[in-house]
Amino acid sequence: MTDLPTTARTDQPAGEALTGYLTAQAAAFLRALPLVVGEAGARAGTLPGGPGGQAAAGTAELLRVVRRIGGALHTYAAGFEPEWAERTRAELRWLLELLAQEPGCLRRSARLLAALDSLSETDPRRPGMLAGHQGAPKARALLERQLTLARTRAHSTLLQELRSARLHALADRMTLLAGEVPLVESQPELAGQAVRALELLSAGVAALPPARAPYGGEGLHRLSVVPPQVPPQGQGPAPVAEVDADAALAADDAPWGRVRILVKRARYALEVCGERLAGLDEVDEVLDRHQDAADAAVTVATAARTPRITPATAYVLGVVHADQRLEVEAARYAFGRRWPNLQQHGWHEWASS
Amino acid sequence: MTDLPTTARTDQPAGEALTGYLTAQAAAFLRALPLVVGEAGARAGTLPGGPGGQAAAGTAELLRVVRRIGGALHTYAAGFEPEWAERTRAELRWLLELLAQEPGCLRRSARLLAALDSLSETDPRRPGMLAGHQGAPKARALLERQLTLARTRAHSTLLQELRSARLHALADRMTLLAGEVPLVESQPELAGQAVRALELLSAGVAALPPARAPYGGEGLHRLSVVPPQVPPQGQGPAPVAEVDADAALAADDAPWGRVRILVKRARYALEVCGERLAGLDEVDEVLDRHQDAADAAVTVATAARTPRITPATAYVLGVVHADQRLEVEAARYAFGRRWPNLQQHGWHEWASS
Repeated sequence: MTDLPTTARTDQPAGEALTGYLTAQAAAFLRALPLVVGEAGARAGTLPGGPGGQAAAGTAELLRVVRRIGGALHTYAAGFEPEWAERTRAELRWLLELLAQEPGCLRRSARLLAALDSLSETDPRRPGMLAGHQGAPKARALLERQLTLARTRAHSTLLQELRSARLHALADRMTLLAGEVPLVESQPELAGQAVRALELLSAGVAALPPARAPYGGEGLHRLSVVPPQVPPQGQGPAPVAEVDADAALAADDAPWGRVRILVKRARYALEVCGERLAGLDEVDEVLDRHQDAADAAVTVATAARTPRITPATAYVLGVVHADQRLEVEAARYAFGRRWPNLQQHGWHEWASS
Repeated sequence: MTDLPTTARTDQPAGEALTGYLTAQAAAFLRALPLVVGEAGARAGTLPGGPGGQAAAGTAELLRVVRRIGGALHTYAAGFEPEWAERTRAELRWLLELLAQEPGCLRRSARLLAALDSLSETDPRRPGMLAGHQGAPKARALLERQLTLARTRAHSTLLQELRSARLHALADRMTLLAGEVPLVESQPELAGQAVRALELLSAGVAALPPARAPYGGEGLHRLSVVPPQVPPQGQGPAPVAEVDADAALAADDAPWGRVRILVKRARYALEVCGERLAGLDEVDEVLDRHQDAADAAVTVATAARTPRITPATAYVLGVVHADQRLEVEAARYAFGRRWPNLQQHGWHEWASS
């Protein structure tokens, strides 16, 4: 855990700090964008299976920058022209989703194939519970095929949108931002806003379901309560409907997804103040893992609905699905172990200093 | 944890204590046996699905007695005519396996159907990860059918053996034991033998694989090392063969199965001395749960190999298999939490007093 330097943050007026942070990030945006266009174009002919995954440094950098600008515009919203800030954030969210698709497919693919290989490992020194199962190679081929297809689709969409008027407009917006940040006259106190971001995070964590004992059996059974559907007006209360597994798992993951966003916002809010909490980076990484495992589980459940697969393939996919839900559980457990320490030794002394 | 009374055990000479214990158990055997014969006969027409499971009190009592006599003959072997003790133990083991089959099927059935129902629960207040999955009712029907069949077979075998000459010979042996225990002249010191049983248990626990961190991912991946097959003489060393899942899981469970037997032996050894360690009863129960979950996982894996099942059924069985392996993991974790306390506050002061 990094001890926070408690002097830096009041040295600079708020407007100056925001301007310094955002112009630097906007310049980084403008440097990374051509790399992404070049990478995406170069990768077009080599998909599927090309070396794009390793070479996508531009995409990773652009994602990094887009998240940070969006986070700063959210947390310090009171400091900017409201209409500009809101529109810019919406466009950055659009680009974020667009950019995140392909790396997401690559991570999911790496995660699922590694899990499958490890589960079906036949080396007597480290066998898996599916060692030598005849469905394993088939399930592997199926997952690989579907994830490559998803990645190709994501790539085509990205290529298309990189040439769109919408992207050009966003690039123009970033060019302007690199020169001048549209601040309002009355600037909020930076540290106060950062503390507010940390408080929102604390509230989000407090709203998580109670911690589960390890192996309490709740991971696959007894998911969170699924909130009732709001009935259309004038039709009276909805009957207590049965839920399906997709809805149940999504509802179970939702509060963790919200906390993940709050962690990232808090990280970027501190960055604007020139601060960093190492513990916050760690829980961010844990919650990214939570998200990746949950997404991977959805991919497996979807693959298992492919028509005409063999029972052996489906059986293996069932084991892998349960395995990824166990990884979700593992990430929650890891979060639960790190959080109290972070909260006690992290920002409390900072917030009250 | 019960504090052990440290005075009782030296009050009685060893031969007297063994005679008292074994004649009482043999009498209990003779009372329970006709109940088992009656129950099994009455149940014959009502299977499958009859009320036998609930009414099988005689079988449970006979199992209880058989385990105890066998345990005492093992731990205090030095006190008996060796040939008689060995033969009696072999016959009791045979009866134990015979009697345990049907209750085992019932427990497995209850465990697996409850797991499946909970995993496929659609109530929005406690949905499972297979909520509403179309394969769930089919998998349930398949498991129910196969377990009922296994139970019927076990029942027929039991009915047949209850009329066998072998059982009558064992009953005669118990009649004789109820009258007189064939002791040798030089009796071992009871407490010393009980301490030895506890030491063997400690050694068995020490030989378990190192404790796993919760959710360390080893539960389904990276099972224990599978011991190499011993090659037939004169054929040179065996090549490092690949293993299949059944062998890998069996090897992973084996040391826990050995500790389960050592726990039971230690419990019954203490009983002969008029002692009881509540903590030992608890870990016995935990390891029974380990065994039941491991057996249930095997049943599911076998069911998944049924020809012509639908992929949806197979997928659900894959999830249930992983779920039962997770229960195995949960039992090991529970054991790991209870054991140090038992060892520290249990018999150490007793053994050294």
